[in-house]
Amino acid sequence: MAKQYDDLGSLKGPAFTDHTFQHYSEMNQDRIYMDYNATTPLEPEVIQAISEALQDAWGNPSSSYIAGAKAKAIINQSRENVARMVGGKAEDIIFTSGGTEANNLVLHTAVEHFRRSCRAAEEGGGQRNGSSGLPHIITSNVEHDSVKLVAEHLQKEGKADVTYVPVSKVTARVEVEDIMAAVRSNTCLVSIMLANNETGVVMPLPEICQRIKRLNRQRERLQILLHTDAAQAVGKIPVHACELGVDYLTIVGHKFYAPRIGALYVNGPGTRTPVYPMLFGGGQERNFRPGTENTPMIAGLGKAADMVTCHLSDYQSHMLTTKLYLEERLKAIFKDKIHFNSHFPGSDVLPNTCNVSILGPTLQGWRVLSSCRRLLASVGAACHSDSGNRPSHILLSCGVPSERAANALRLSVGRGTTMADVDAVVEDLRETVQLLEDML
Amino acid sequence: MAKQYDDLGSLKGPAFTDHTFQHYSEMNQDRIYMDYNATTPLEPEVIQAISEALQDAWGNPSSSYIAGAKAKAIINQSRENVARMVGGKAEDIIFTSGGTEANNLVLHTAVEHFRRSCRAAEEGGGQRNGSSGLPHIITSNVEHDSVKLVAEHLQKEGKADVTYVPVSKVTARVEVEDIMAAVRSNTCLVSIMLANNETGVVMPLPEICQRIKRLNRQRERLQILLHTDAAQAVGKIPVHACELGVDYLTIVGHKFYAPRIGALYVNGPGTRTPVYPMLFGGGQERNFRPGTENTPMIAGLGKAADMVTCHLSDYQSHMLTTKLYLEERLKAIFKDKIHFNSHFPGSDVLPNTCNVSILGPTLQGWRVLSSCRRLLASVGAACHSDSGNRPSHILLSCGVPSERAANALRLSVGRGTTMADVDAVVEDLRETVQLLEDML
Repeated sequence: MAKQYDDLGSLKGPAFTDHTFQHYSEMNQDRIYMDYNATTPLEPEVIQAISEALQDAWGNPSSSYIAGAKAKAIINQSRENVARMVGGKAEDIIFTSGGTEANNLVLHTAVEHFRRSCRAAEEGGGQRNGSSGLPHIITSNVEHDSVKLVAEHLQKEGKADVTYVPVSKVTARVEVEDIMAAVRSNTCLVSIMLANNETGVVMPLPEICQRIKRLNRQRERLQILLHTDAAQAVGKIPVHACELGVDYLTIVGHKFYAPRIGALYVNGPGTRTPVYPMLFGGGQERNFRPGTENTPMIAGLGKAADMVTCHLSDYQSHMLTTKLYLEERLKAIFKDKIHFNSHFPGSDVLPNTCNVSILGPTLQGWRVLSSCRRLLASVGAACHSDSGNRPSHILLSCGVPSERAANALRLSVGRGTTMADVDAVVEDLRETVQLLEDML
Repeated sequence: MAKQYDDLGSLKGPAFTDHTFQHYSEMNQDRIYMDYNATTPLEPEVIQAISEALQDAWGNPSSSYIAGAKAKAIINQSRENVARMVGGKAEDIIFTSGGTEANNLVLHTAVEHFRRSCRAAEEGGGQRNGSSGLPHIITSNVEHDSVKLVAEHLQKEGKADVTYVPVSKVTARVEVEDIMAAVRSNTCLVSIMLANNETGVVMPLPEICQRIKRLNRQRERLQILLHTDAAQAVGKIPVHACELGVDYLTIVGHKFYAPRIGALYVNGPGTRTPVYPMLFGGGQERNFRPGTENTPMIAGLGKAADMVTCHLSDYQSHMLTTKLYLEERLKAIFKDKIHFNSHFPGSDVLPNTCNVSILGPTLQGWRVLSSCRRLLASVGAACHSDSGNRPSHILLSCGVPSERAANALRLSVGRGTTMADVDAVVEDLRETVQLLEDML
């Protein structure tokens, strides 16, 4: 855990040339990156794995000669590493271009599975699953856009009914009873993120899955499929697909120091759990996701997964220690002027995520961040960075009042964030707040 | 053009450490790679661009601070480079995970566009485009699986009618008149590859597009969209989207010394030409293709595109010279025992592709390749490498008799293939053939 990052969180190590460093420090001066929930740098070992594959394993993995075989071996090894990280088997892992594709694939599959189940039931002379004609999806009102917008699209196109179960305004979690109350006879999928990207709140997936499975045992035909988008959880807390009880689990490389690809864990794809591909082509990934494999990125994902498997408890405790110190320093400096939007009674929170509002009429999150000299952070999901200065709908959904939500800063620390980084950031915030308050 | 490749086509240069070389040569001994249509190695400059981005530009391109801005700038530069390579504008380029996704997106868009056009016409009180209820797609019978299998899926699901226009058994091209004869009132898309991956035959895209556009001017409502999968053509022959006249053009990085991502050129996406996304998420690529951008791979694609723009005529003439020498040597050694499956009267062929059969009862392509000591090549598309020893359906479609097709070898040379490589491969084939004939 003694890894050193420079100010932008970039890893200092032999992988860096002097030229890189010089260029870097000119650009970034002494900025401190605390936006690890937006994306992470790559571990030097991961860059190394990618670089080796770029040079040595460029053969087409489908080619039958040695160059193809080498690429295929790397891909297989990565598949095992990724599977081990989430407690699955190698054959449960389908590599995708990223989390967006993985999430889309799950919702697509659920709708398609419903359609085929209905057709099969009709052909068998049975009823339409005792259900209406449309598949019903249950999700929460704090999901990432790659679940939320897919659900909205399906709804708008008349292809699915969707219930967006609101999270509790007390716990910021989606509550099990609310999920169960939303179930209908035509419910085909429950998709709930494992941890929220803005508040860091961990959702009660094991309880949800347990209850839905109990219900599934009573349902004759249409089983409810269970999905979690674990983008923000992997690499920060233990994530074990079987213990959670999910059928599908989304893995996003660039949230755990791996490259910009992803994977979908499926509990027995095509056997125990349906997968209906969105793409058709050359048969790669057992036809679940064709396209010539991105060997180097898959190599990097595998390496990063292996590091999580080996070092998770170190990563977790370092991030937690650092975050607690950050919260302590913020409280010491800002006293009752701050409010943590990531503290909810009874709810677990990711070890690295501190969502905080500094109260005051001129201290809107965007204003504070754009005035900070050193801190690099965000007010919410990166993909909403162009949504103007409106308070985060996620925080509002969690019961954070509008005025406080407008002042929110999402500070997310990483494996290499130091106590000195924290001190510097808190000092930067102190000066910035003073400056902005003096403008009043 | 004086670049040196080692035996597996890997580039010798400063990007390689001694360790890499050693490891490499142990693995590959003295094999010679002639399967550049399956995939290419990456240019050292491309690896350099990827490596720099992995280290320096890992920020989330959607983040509003400098780390995001730097990533965004790299992506924009790559977009310009890729656009310039195919004669388009930066805004015409949508980055995708690869050619498979790009091709799927085009067929998905065409079907969706038809559906919406019908709906609009109905709402306007008009007729259903004077057409039947199903969209009709025209393609050829020698397309890559990422077009062919999408079309078959749409057909099977009752979502589209498809005509697979057979290529001429004389020219191995799809002929313009055959395309025109297949047009129906409900035709919404013509998708024809620019060059075939097995024969290298270049299709008459400019003529097809010209004729379809003339027809479009007479059609009141439903315009026929024009797509070409240029996977095998880019980097080998000039590819200019406007001169071809297409609305969509598929670009596949790993066929021109770039990494395993791709792009879709669209002539004015969302304005002049429809694009209906398959994925929904964080808004990247102007919502046409969401998902956090794979900055390093995009950087590599941009660099490779720039190299094609700058050096295409050198690449092309080197590959052509090398291939012609290969064909000459093959003829000199095997005399009337060989037949070129890439020679068709009046048809242009890619400068790097030599499809050849050595005639004889024991000289099936798979048997020859598996007995060769040095040559690495294939009998057809890599994604069909597990399809057993059946003769290529592509060659059969081109009028190659079954027995000769069974003996086919696809030899595709690259930027770094040398005359010495050719000599060695021909000698390897000579010895192999002798060995196999002696077994009779």
